[in-house]
Amino acid sequence: MRIAIFGFGNLGRGVVEAAKQNPDVRLIGIFSRRDPEKIGAKPVDIPIYPATLLERAKHDIDVLLLCGGSAVDLPEQTPTLARDFNVVDSFDTHAKIPTHFRAVDAAARAGGHLALISAGWDPGLFSLARLYAAAALPQGKSYTFWGRGVSEGHSDAVRRLPGVLDARAYTLPNEAALDAVRGGETPQLTAGQMHRRVCFVIAAPNADRGEIVRRIREMPAYFADYDTEVNFVTETEMARDHAALPHGGSVIRSGRRGVHRHTVEFSLRLGSNPEFTAGVLVACARAVHRMRARGEVGCRTLLDVAPADLSPQSADELRRTLL
Amino acid sequence: MRIAIFGFGNLGRGVVEAAKQNPDVRLIGIFSRRDPEKIGAKPVDIPIYPATLLERAKHDIDVLLLCGGSAVDLPEQTPTLARDFNVVDSFDTHAKIPTHFRAVDAAARAGGHLALISAGWDPGLFSLARLYAAAALPQGKSYTFWGRGVSEGHSDAVRRLPGVLDARAYTLPNEAALDAVRGGETPQLTAGQMHRRVCFVIAAPNADRGEIVRRIREMPAYFADYDTEVNFVTETEMARDHAALPHGGSVIRSGRRGVHRHTVEFSLRLGSNPEFTAGVLVACARAVHRMRARGEVGCRTLLDVAPADLSPQSADELRRTLL
Repeated sequence: MRIAIFGFGNLGRGVVEAAKQNPDVRLIGIFSRRDPEKIGAKPVDIPIYPATLLERAKHDIDVLLLCGGSAVDLPEQTPTLARDFNVVDSFDTHAKIPTHFRAVDAAARAGGHLALISAGWDPGLFSLARLYAAAALPQGKSYTFWGRGVSEGHSDAVRRLPGVLDARAYTLPNEAALDAVRGGETPQLTAGQMHRRVCFVIAAPNADRGEIVRRIREMPAYFADYDTEVNFVTETEMARDHAALPHGGSVIRSGRRGVHRHTVEFSLRLGSNPEFTAGVLVACARAVHRMRARGEVGCRTLLDVAPADLSPQSADELRRTLL
Repeated sequence: MRIAIFGFGNLGRGVVEAAKQNPDVRLIGIFSRRDPEKIGAKPVDIPIYPATLLERAKHDIDVLLLCGGSAVDLPEQTPTLARDFNVVDSFDTHAKIPTHFRAVDAAARAGGHLALISAGWDPGLFSLARLYAAAALPQGKSYTFWGRGVSEGHSDAVRRLPGVLDARAYTLPNEAALDAVRGGETPQLTAGQMHRRVCFVIAAPNADRGEIVRRIREMPAYFADYDTEVNFVTETEMARDHAALPHGGSVIRSGRRGVHRHTVEFSLRLGSNPEFTAGVLVACARAVHRMRARGEVGCRTLLDVAPADLSPQSADELRRTLL
């Protein structure tokens, strides 16, 4: 299976590493809108082409992995490219998934291609955990706890404040809430009761630190509803302690049937969010390739993919070794 | 969707309860080889018929849930009944799944029906967790820890010893091994290093208790490779403390990509093993009904089922609320 990457940020770099771990996958190239000369830390052996050459490589790419961002890139790129390519994206703006799905579905059908959107861990593996748990325990309550991990959207929001040179915002689960839910309790909890936030900020030399703290803590939607801690750090400390992008979390569903309580939990502890997400994207590319070969067109999500299609092992092998 | 139960033990009783939690499911009856008059604690509103009437109800049943045991019942019943019914079973003898699959597949194809075997949590949801984790992290190591839970096969083995009136054998994870694997370590571990066993035994009045302990601890395959604790209890204690059939466990996979480590965990804590398993069976019946309606025949396992087919929600609703 020949894949290519469109967009070479953290996720694209993760796909380069993930492809190496999948012997049935050949990464034929990276397409970028940036000047290839200006991209630092290029992978060895994988060519980087300008995005304008993508159209010409159409017949050499079985599945194109779209590694742009959900805010601006994917809403435009995925529907456009799904006309000419089988594509996988990691669109993760939950509220806009239905709209994105419809646009991609129409484009993929028009072009006779297959697209899989919102691959990754949330949406993605966490969505699967929510579905399986609810199917097995229809009467129950599901909770999603995120963290400990870096929230890139929240980090960006802090970076935009005056007097802030750089920032990293972490989301952490509220341990007491997590323990209660793990223990089978089903309390009513807001996102703010389930999580807290911890920020690390490099302030400009003359900045009013008290004002920065106040503006972070009062930022609606992002921080106002959460117990938020703000720490000021030096550039050295930021580079040393906060360079990685760890993330993770837990989906927990508790339900009762008869007199008994049952609890299902799916958890991830990820050293690097984009690296792990990239692994899911490559597995999804495999499924798209197989499903397209069986004649499927249109848009899908992980909820529509038979699990065996994600695996390099044959159905016989899976039944023998893993079922 | 109209379902029926064949075999009315603990699992069949679980299906009666699970069906009530699924408004799209109508349980039309229970078929049993036992004299219906001799079955205790009959469910209200659900008729119990003799097994001999099953053939006559063929056109009233969309999916038949086979609730017999894996040792004797299912290897014969599932292939026989898959000729005339769409069926779901919970066949769980891992080593014999490929043989069972082939027999059921041939029968279901011959009869133009669809069968799903080995539904439940292991095989079942644990198999799915192993597959998804390995697809996302191809270079890694998977572990399955079982317990704390009642092992029915091991309980039976103890019950067959001379001088034993009743017994319950629990499997427990070795907490040190579990913590190491959860922490991202990937040690080489035998099943005996990952688990220990605790037995509760009612001895006959004149039995040689030392001899019972010795014979349990030396029983090959079942106990010899495990740290095994044996406790003698009274009938009252057994009824009070060991009437339920709790189970559970964890599938954990750790893998490395680049410099980072990633850990995926799926855990269950089940108040009652057969009750929870029954919930999975009913969800699988829904998928079988839908897949058959799309023209599929033959044998499947959960690894072949698109997750959305297990859910009562529509694809649109799933994308909007749960993805």
